[in-house]
Amino acid sequence: MIITFSAIQEAAQRLQPVAHRTPVLTSSFLNQLTGNQLYFKCENLQRVGAFKFRGAYNAIAQLSAEEKQRGVVAFSSGNHAQGVALASALLQVPAKIVMPLDAPPAKLAATRGYGAEVVLYDRYKQDRAAIAKEIQAREGRVLIPPFDHAHVIAGQGTAALEFYEQAPQLEVLLAPVGGGGLISGCAIALHHLAPRAEIYGVEAESANDTFLSLQRNARVTIPVPKTIADGMQVTSPGEVTFQIMREHLAGVLLVTEEEIKRAMLLVLERMKILIEPTAAVPVAAALKNEKGWHNRHVGIIVSGGNVGWDTLKSCLETAAP
Amino acid sequence: MIITFSAIQEAAQRLQPVAHRTPVLTSSFLNQLTGNQLYFKCENLQRVGAFKFRGAYNAIAQLSAEEKQRGVVAFSSGNHAQGVALASALLQVPAKIVMPLDAPPAKLAATRGYGAEVVLYDRYKQDRAAIAKEIQAREGRVLIPPFDHAHVIAGQGTAALEFYEQAPQLEVLLAPVGGGGLISGCAIALHHLAPRAEIYGVEAESANDTFLSLQRNARVTIPVPKTIADGMQVTSPGEVTFQIMREHLAGVLLVTEEEIKRAMLLVLERMKILIEPTAAVPVAAALKNEKGWHNRHVGIIVSGGNVGWDTLKSCLETAAP
Repeated sequence: MIITFSAIQEAAQRLQPVAHRTPVLTSSFLNQLTGNQLYFKCENLQRVGAFKFRGAYNAIAQLSAEEKQRGVVAFSSGNHAQGVALASALLQVPAKIVMPLDAPPAKLAATRGYGAEVVLYDRYKQDRAAIAKEIQAREGRVLIPPFDHAHVIAGQGTAALEFYEQAPQLEVLLAPVGGGGLISGCAIALHHLAPRAEIYGVEAESANDTFLSLQRNARVTIPVPKTIADGMQVTSPGEVTFQIMREHLAGVLLVTEEEIKRAMLLVLERMKILIEPTAAVPVAAALKNEKGWHNRHVGIIVSGGNVGWDTLKSCLETAAP
Repeated sequence: MIITFSAIQEAAQRLQPVAHRTPVLTSSFLNQLTGNQLYFKCENLQRVGAFKFRGAYNAIAQLSAEEKQRGVVAFSSGNHAQGVALASALLQVPAKIVMPLDAPPAKLAATRGYGAEVVLYDRYKQDRAAIAKEIQAREGRVLIPPFDHAHVIAGQGTAALEFYEQAPQLEVLLAPVGGGGLISGCAIALHHLAPRAEIYGVEAESANDTFLSLQRNARVTIPVPKTIADGMQVTSPGEVTFQIMREHLAGVLLVTEEEIKRAMLLVLERMKILIEPTAAVPVAAALKNEKGWHNRHVGIIVSGGNVGWDTLKSCLETAAP
């Protein structure tokens, strides 16, 4: 599957009337701290609080009239649920989202608030993919996958297209890697515009499936990782995204849970924006700076800002200075 | 004292190379909740985390070469301290800031971090204004007042100048009122550009000195208010600012402590930005909507984002849903 730069440009045109052109923020304090010029592409300020809206909208918008009428289905306990729900509502497509019974009430309410129908399942007894497939078969709905899909990847890539327009001096790009949809789209966009840019994925140490897969040059499956970065609870990179990451990434960096929490609070304190743990993962890598960058223009994709109050409280209890 | 629109334009030119042009954010969720179109001018994303940098820089930049050499002095336990400290550092002017012994360590560290000398005093035994005046007399330093000063007011007004450029559809403007510097400058700028715009100040119920002063058409002094909105711990409006507010404000709205905390958390949850309690005061008024606005374009000046962890924790304990 080849995803072209022009597919990303077309996605950007599709998204232009409905998505936020999120701001790029900087912080003198963090620049001084790291010895580099950091640029934060704030997808936490995107609609639904995460970049996921881009890919979901780009995929659903390209369905045929007949497919749109039959509707879509997706399974997600996180930001993809809300992305699909809002994109469907805007495109007047009926959406069913399969979510766990014990998902945070705020996430269930938000998904329903966008007008999607939520199908609950017991994640200790039932298989969500099977439930979604059954709905897909029975109702003829189109399944919108969270990352391993050309239109989804092209949609996510629009974040880097904008980022480059806003900060053309970028030399290094850091982005979190869950299934790899965000960084794959962004890598295609950025390498077209700036072929020499170095692009690094960043994972939590316990969620190192892409790190291992690139090391072994084959997709590795790990147990469900235990990490505060809930967007990284993915056990292996996608088939499509792995091919793209293998071609484009300079490497994958790893950070600890403690580094993630500290990065999240530092950004809240100094930059006044709420970023979710998954978004704090590349920030933690910029702070750690294990590559020893100096005076470089480093872009960070801040992937989202959906943080439960319990998570925020526990960060404040354990990691606040 | 007359502050002209062109003084604000000149301030904007002075600030252009050093201040952030802060973004204007919107939220579909808050629009739906209030039935209006809300626009948030994010001065919490300004340098030092508050609009105060604008006024301080505009005042210090206009000192004579000789005054700059002698240096400046200011007294503040809040954002004005950091605004003066950073502005002085950028202009290579020595700064002394008189701050209470028991100020939060983070604020002391931040002020010193910008290169200012901090002079500590015991706020239960000493008078900070007297200390600052003594330093002013002894060292020939220029005192930079927090609000009642033409150059400070003109600097703060640049926030509204930018806001109008970013959102020319504004019909109503809401801003917090401490001493009145922010809203005075903003009122002069906005009424020049949009003479029919309605401008409301907002205060915490216990910090209603400007509300009472406008009601009685004379400056009223109240006891030091007890409110979480620490930028409103001012006991009476300024002489200059009161004249301007009397001329320009459509009124002053009041909100409760509970409403302030809820607004702060709602903005954190839904908009992913950290705003300080004082900045949450006009947001609370927009949510309360006591004027019954419908389908109106309402601008809110989000004055700052400097929140101590203890304050945030206590909000999460008492006001989180």
